[in-house]
Amino acid sequence: MTLNNFEEYEDPILYDQENETYMPEIPFLLKWAFKKQGFIIDLACGTGRVTIPLAENGHRLIGVDIHKGMLDEARKKSGQLDLQIEWIEQDCTKLNLNAKSNLIYSVGNSFQHFLTNEAQDELLSSVNNHLEMGGVFIFGTRFPSVEELLQPPTEEYWKTYTDRETQHTVDVFTISEYDSLDQIQHYTTIRKYKNQDGNLIDEKSTNIRLRYVFPKEMERLLNAQGFEILHLYKDWKETPVTNDSYEMIYVCKKIR
Amino acid sequence: MTLNNFEEYEDPILYDQENETYMPEIPFLLKWAFKKQGFIIDLACGTGRVTIPLAENGHRLIGVDIHKGMLDEARKKSGQLDLQIEWIEQDCTKLNLNAKSNLIYSVGNSFQHFLTNEAQDELLSSVNNHLEMGGVFIFGTRFPSVEELLQPPTEEYWKTYTDRETQHTVDVFTISEYDSLDQIQHYTTIRKYKNQDGNLIDEKSTNIRLRYVFPKEMERLLNAQGFEILHLYKDWKETPVTNDSYEMIYVCKKIR
Repeated sequence: MTLNNFEEYEDPILYDQENETYMPEIPFLLKWAFKKQGFIIDLACGTGRVTIPLAENGHRLIGVDIHKGMLDEARKKSGQLDLQIEWIEQDCTKLNLNAKSNLIYSVGNSFQHFLTNEAQDELLSSVNNHLEMGGVFIFGTRFPSVEELLQPPTEEYWKTYTDRETQHTVDVFTISEYDSLDQIQHYTTIRKYKNQDGNLIDEKSTNIRLRYVFPKEMERLLNAQGFEILHLYKDWKETPVTNDSYEMIYVCKKIR
Repeated sequence: MTLNNFEEYEDPILYDQENETYMPEIPFLLKWAFKKQGFIIDLACGTGRVTIPLAENGHRLIGVDIHKGMLDEARKKSGQLDLQIEWIEQDCTKLNLNAKSNLIYSVGNSFQHFLTNEAQDELLSSVNNHLEMGGVFIFGTRFPSVEELLQPPTEEYWKTYTDRETQHTVDVFTISEYDSLDQIQHYTTIRKYKNQDGNLIDEKSTNIRLRYVFPKEMERLLNAQGFEILHLYKDWKETPVTNDSYEMIYVCKKIR
């Protein structure tokens, strides 16, 4: 995997500001963590948004990410909290930890960063290699509903937040274009910075590509890589998946 | 495979009336037929819409279908033309012909009748078993574009034709509902029969389910079953597939 799809993560502090309060996965992952003994691997852990709360709940965590900037921020935060988390800079498709776990997870739809069939296979093969037999891999990915794929190719308002340092208001917009052949949504995120008088003072745009996998395709992929799907939910509250879900949460077990 | 998705084929004469003039596949298949020696297998051949023209061009054909009514009509037509076509009633997922071919094809989007991953695997395994190494399997399937999947759940006009026997005008409408989880479009076809005064005198409705496969999913499926994709076209004129195609025509070679 090459480092060419990470513009969204170049500013870890910005990433945290925009995302850190969102963590619906914690109760769900804690439930699985208590079922499974030993250390837990958080793949594509980023700044530790979910790794850190799990460690604060008494679990041993290894956080793996390919992005040094995000890991540095994670390390800084866990150090301030005096938490023993091992942060490892590795490509998740070429994972080499010299250890096996009973629980590996990857949240924040990071699965969609693995853009090709080959990258997906390598990721799942890496995960399989680091799971004990019967061990569980948990991950989420956006549900490729018609509505999800049909997002407008024109600027669409997403959200607004206040920048902590400058106190500027930031309006965030997205533009998307879906390629049905490679099953990839090409997103542009545009941040418009306004001062306290409401005047536009800066504008930045970043790009990201997200691969979509359809439900029957995911069954093929997971089966081929030695996994059995234990559960498929539409959210982290364990609601069964439906035809109009926004996300698919897979809990799968290594069976070979 | 159970015989529960064939309401559209209960009237082979009606089927021919509505479909027989449509045959864009012939020049394309003839080109491949001339490249490959020996007999050709037409899977899900129906009433012989494509089988018969290929035999008329001097090729040896075996037509296989699960539907006796359609095959009876095919046999009748080829008998009248004095063509030597072998018509065989078999389930394509459990093909047992005791012979190997260099060219197998399946047209009319019949691939979409294989509704589950398991049925698709069985079909392709059957095809593989009946192909010589290096032999070619050609098939088409509707492109799962957002527009294709988003067809209206209300009655939509499709086409009009005149019934040969009664001279009644038949207006054909469709209703469709797509299930994103099983990747199946549920179609209802409604035929409204009008007399020469334009008054509605009868109405019939039939149901059919069609499974969609996404491009990257198809790569997985074909690779897993021992095929290499030689070509992917958007039509039978060999136009390369694009992001807004209506159909995907696969030419694939048995490589193991």
